[in-house]
Amino acid sequence: MYPESLKNLIDSFQNFPGIGEKTAERMAFAVLNFDDDKFLLLQENLEDVKNKIHPCKVCNTLTDEDLCTICSNNFRDKETLCVVEDSKIVFLFERLGTYKGMYHVINGLISPLDNINPEDIGLDKLLDRIKQDNIKEVILALKPSVEGEITARYIKKIVEGMNVLVTRLASGVPIGADMEYIDTLTLERALEDRKEIS
Amino acid sequence: MYPESLKNLIDSFQNFPGIGEKTAERMAFAVLNFDDDKFLLLQENLEDVKNKIHPCKVCNTLTDEDLCTICSNNFRDKETLCVVEDSKIVFLFERLGTYKGMYHVINGLISPLDNINPEDIGLDKLLDRIKQDNIKEVILALKPSVEGEITARYIKKIVEGMNVLVTRLASGVPIGADMEYIDTLTLERALEDRKEIS
Repeated sequence: MYPESLKNLIDSFQNFPGIGEKTAERMAFAVLNFDDDKFLLLQENLEDVKNKIHPCKVCNTLTDEDLCTICSNNFRDKETLCVVEDSKIVFLFERLGTYKGMYHVINGLISPLDNINPEDIGLDKLLDRIKQDNIKEVILALKPSVEGEITARYIKKIVEGMNVLVTRLASGVPIGADMEYIDTLTLERALEDRKEIS
Repeated sequence: MYPESLKNLIDSFQNFPGIGEKTAERMAFAVLNFDDDKFLLLQENLEDVKNKIHPCKVCNTLTDEDLCTICSNNFRDKETLCVVEDSKIVFLFERLGTYKGMYHVINGLISPLDNINPEDIGLDKLLDRIKQDNIKEVILALKPSVEGEITARYIKKIVEGMNVLVTRLASGVPIGADMEYIDTLTLERALEDRKEIS
């Protein structure tokens, strides 16, 4: 139905997460209407992301510098380290604007079933950093899942005896959620971790 | 918050119709995970659409050939011409698969308020084609709006005396619509055009 090159671009757009057929079509038609400047900018921005973005050499957060803006910021609390499984989570935290410590991005979660072991996700680099930077608190902001739990316990174990406080994010009922749709595991955790109303 | 090149790509994606901030972010992160093949393919598909797609020299439908697949198809009804305001509408009709006639894409609609006159939307080319191809019926599939109405009446007028049947799409209540949400103009037209149940 569509000319081949248009169809190919629609296919390319549909490859993106969250992009359905209708949106991919609208996007491809939009490209047709781009003037040369706008088109060139899109091409350049794609190239730049592909070529310039890489993990920060200290914390693995995606950056286009040697050191990410967080690692090179001298006004942050260097002794608190938030461990996340993906750079995206760093940006999510930064959007809050309330966390002032540092981050460390590990490369996913331990998953024995998928044959992903501690050495595959860069826990050695994490351990080195905790020692070297004299970290006082490690906050584990990992996915609340079996794999997240395994990874959290493993990290807790390897820093034993190093006088480091290991904490994790509170689990519970999300703000604004309809109580009837809360899954039983979340409800169980929320009950277990209940807090006195002050 | 984001590294600059990542932020630029997110901006580029947000420029597309129907793409909000969240989706643009997910798309930019997806590009980061593209392998070289997938990335190259996206770049090529963009280039191809920009360089190869142009209006069919007969009917103006977007194509990557000299003549679009519809104009070069000898099994279609050459005497029925559906006039649309945008190539997208051609593809919409083709998706139905029931229309067997030809198309002609005009360049938008007459709009006195926006200073868009008959000569701006290529009605001379349309008129030439109606004469030359000995068209028997012109189906106007234009937007049901003031501009659509003006354009339809203008086309009706210029083919007067040429023994061409000029029709337009039926207006009325969309299938599956909730009656309470139908706007008054649509309802008025639906009532006016009511059909006997056979």
